[in-house]
Amino acid sequence: MGGGFGGLKAVRALSRVDVEVTLVDRHNYHLFQPLSYQVATGSLSPGDIAVPLRRILRAQQNARVVIGEVTGFDLSARRVTVAPAVAGTEPYTLEYERLVVAGGSTYSYFGHESWRELALEVKSLDSALEVRGRILQAFEAAEISGDPQERAQWLTFVVVGAGPTGVEIAGQIAELARDTAPEFRTSDPAGARILLVETLDRVLGGFPASLSRSALRALETVGVTPMLGQTVTDIDGRSIELSGADGAPTRIEARTVVWAAGVTASPLAAALAQAAGAEVDRVGRLTVEPDLSLAGHPEVLALGDMVAVRDVRSGEARALPGLAPVAIQQGRYVARSIAAGLSGRDMPAFHYRDKGSLATIGRARAVAQIGPLRLSGVVAWILWLVVHLYYLVGFENREVVLLRWAYSFFSHGRGTRLITEAAGAPPLAQRAQDER
Amino acid sequence: MGGGFGGLKAVRALSRVDVEVTLVDRHNYHLFQPLSYQVATGSLSPGDIAVPLRRILRAQQNARVVIGEVTGFDLSARRVTVAPAVAGTEPYTLEYERLVVAGGSTYSYFGHESWRELALEVKSLDSALEVRGRILQAFEAAEISGDPQERAQWLTFVVVGAGPTGVEIAGQIAELARDTAPEFRTSDPAGARILLVETLDRVLGGFPASLSRSALRALETVGVTPMLGQTVTDIDGRSIELSGADGAPTRIEARTVVWAAGVTASPLAAALAQAAGAEVDRVGRLTVEPDLSLAGHPEVLALGDMVAVRDVRSGEARALPGLAPVAIQQGRYVARSIAAGLSGRDMPAFHYRDKGSLATIGRARAVAQIGPLRLSGVVAWILWLVVHLYYLVGFENREVVLLRWAYSFFSHGRGTRLITEAAGAPPLAQRAQDER
Repeated sequence: MGGGFGGLKAVRALSRVDVEVTLVDRHNYHLFQPLSYQVATGSLSPGDIAVPLRRILRAQQNARVVIGEVTGFDLSARRVTVAPAVAGTEPYTLEYERLVVAGGSTYSYFGHESWRELALEVKSLDSALEVRGRILQAFEAAEISGDPQERAQWLTFVVVGAGPTGVEIAGQIAELARDTAPEFRTSDPAGARILLVETLDRVLGGFPASLSRSALRALETVGVTPMLGQTVTDIDGRSIELSGADGAPTRIEARTVVWAAGVTASPLAAALAQAAGAEVDRVGRLTVEPDLSLAGHPEVLALGDMVAVRDVRSGEARALPGLAPVAIQQGRYVARSIAAGLSGRDMPAFHYRDKGSLATIGRARAVAQIGPLRLSGVVAWILWLVVHLYYLVGFENREVVLLRWAYSFFSHGRGTRLITEAAGAPPLAQRAQDER
Repeated sequence: MGGGFGGLKAVRALSRVDVEVTLVDRHNYHLFQPLSYQVATGSLSPGDIAVPLRRILRAQQNARVVIGEVTGFDLSARRVTVAPAVAGTEPYTLEYERLVVAGGSTYSYFGHESWRELALEVKSLDSALEVRGRILQAFEAAEISGDPQERAQWLTFVVVGAGPTGVEIAGQIAELARDTAPEFRTSDPAGARILLVETLDRVLGGFPASLSRSALRALETVGVTPMLGQTVTDIDGRSIELSGADGAPTRIEARTVVWAAGVTASPLAAALAQAAGAEVDRVGRLTVEPDLSLAGHPEVLALGDMVAVRDVRSGEARALPGLAPVAIQQGRYVARSIAAGLSGRDMPAFHYRDKGSLATIGRARAVAQIGPLRLSGVVAWILWLVVHLYYLVGFENREVVLLRWAYSFFSHGRGTRLITEAAGAPPLAQRAQDER
């Protein structure tokens, strides 16, 4: 279950295997998550990066789709409870012979749950639309504000976490501000401050140091101010407090904070661990065996960034990077493992083949690491583009996305800058009430 | 004020006139409303039919955009109060020399305000997204329902009102059901009932009778059941009650009702009438003089489907059809009138040039009336396509829309069938609570 990269890959890889597959997901679509930040900054429409699961699995006759939320596991009876996403329908139970759990992860607010409302993330489509609404409304608020201090608050954007997502979104906000500046008459979005806060002393901590330096320079060029070695200690909707290594806190007046720091595994990891009498690690991940099965339950497989995989030699649980390629490889592996089980064959342990990492910084800048190769600048960006378009396979509107990108790239335009109701309006209205 | 067809046309037509223009709208985008039903049925993305107002007016240096809701008129002081759409910002006042009010209209529920939540309309982008969510969720609910009666309820869709919008949305739901049927395993959306309820004894009451007959045949061909001469007497979320000329009520079990019957003018018409000591008509429209000005206030102009225009000869108030061409012609007229006023020239009364009417029924069927000419079938549909693409001028992504349509047409696909939070989730959750 789970219609992300891993779960969907597992279902598709089972198409020629003599099994019946049921895919359960809360949403009726598969999201191309690596581009959700582009929805948040108005470069792409939701429909460009999300495809209905039913459409993807339309021709796969052995696959069924159920839209609903998994609420419980009964491993001994081999049953899963699902609460349907549609009101007026009863919760119900699915029986299984093999269970694949691919619940993914969410952002972790380091125990500060109140920050979740104030500092939105771009991991889901709904929250990306909310981020879009908040960013655009901040520019609108600056335009009509008569108070210079308040205007500066609205034109200060803080992105927390300088991993690929944080770097990408900070770069995009900077370009959005610059691109749309001519559309405003009173305020000057080109003067917006975009701060990128990171606990480590460099951006893109998972990349080689030389690429971190390239990315840092690229960020500064597009107008992002990196604030390295800083930890967030408070967020209140009007300002954010940071604390450096020297301990002295800094308070920055900013109305808009985007969260891209630290992930925690889906609650399904804990639910599954509890059902199996196992435990989860510090960030909520479930440990699975080298073949991705649950200890004591070979019929239950789990994958993606909600699990840590036990090393076949050392026996230690090791977390793989939370990237789409990991989930895709694991999805393919579990499908093969299920097929092997049917024909009584054994499977070697799962092995992740690292094909490299990519991150993009605004328009036409990126960094890439492929094995020993390190690339930056336009060449890396073209590689980024090719890889992302390639992986949009199955997305019927790949050509549409390409066309829109091409248009947006050459025109510096952002056609999808719409503030719809999903896009922040209700929470903002809520905030208005709180402020009264 | 008003970023619809009329208000926006007025602003753009003033670009070479020596005036400062402020455009006020609740939304940050201009919506190509004649296609909003295509968003509701998953053929188009919001970004395909909505463009940020700031983007449209980017190069027009004498135009300013303010996102907010007009809350009051003070005609003697020549001031308008605006409540900004962004929380944490103060309401403020705009002063004017000339005021143009183009507030449009909303659907009228004939005094049954409780129906507004149960029977959504597709006039605004947000409600079109909600309709989309409800239609898609109905198919999902049918798929997981174990009860045949409940499944039939979910697979019955009622569209109220057989004007162009009602006809178009009913045709689209029928095609959506047929197109997506192969994606379902348990239920059969192809067996869905789509009922089109109309008080008159024919569909497309504003068209010539011969075209109404063509449209009726086309609707039956695509699988819509027209229910003519029927009035809605009750909607409760699970069923709808109709009453015919014979007076005997019929109750139809249906979970999804889409409203496309009868419009009422924007509340701004009444607010403006009150400020001027005038009155509004039965459907809330304000009467304006033959030159679209307010009686006694030549500096205030109002246009679009929130007004009825006094005939220059008979002196009687006459409502023009609520169509984009009317609003566009009136927008152009008021801009000329303002320019004429500056140079002391007089303007002849506004005269509407009827260029014809068009309505489409599903894929590749339409009816058209252009002067004495009546067309139906594929020819009319191609005309419809050409006209709509032509009027998407200013929409940067006209090519994208065309490409998506072409794709969708040939593949019978609907890429944007996404249930996002805006798309019905909160109201459904609400309904669930009500049912408990």
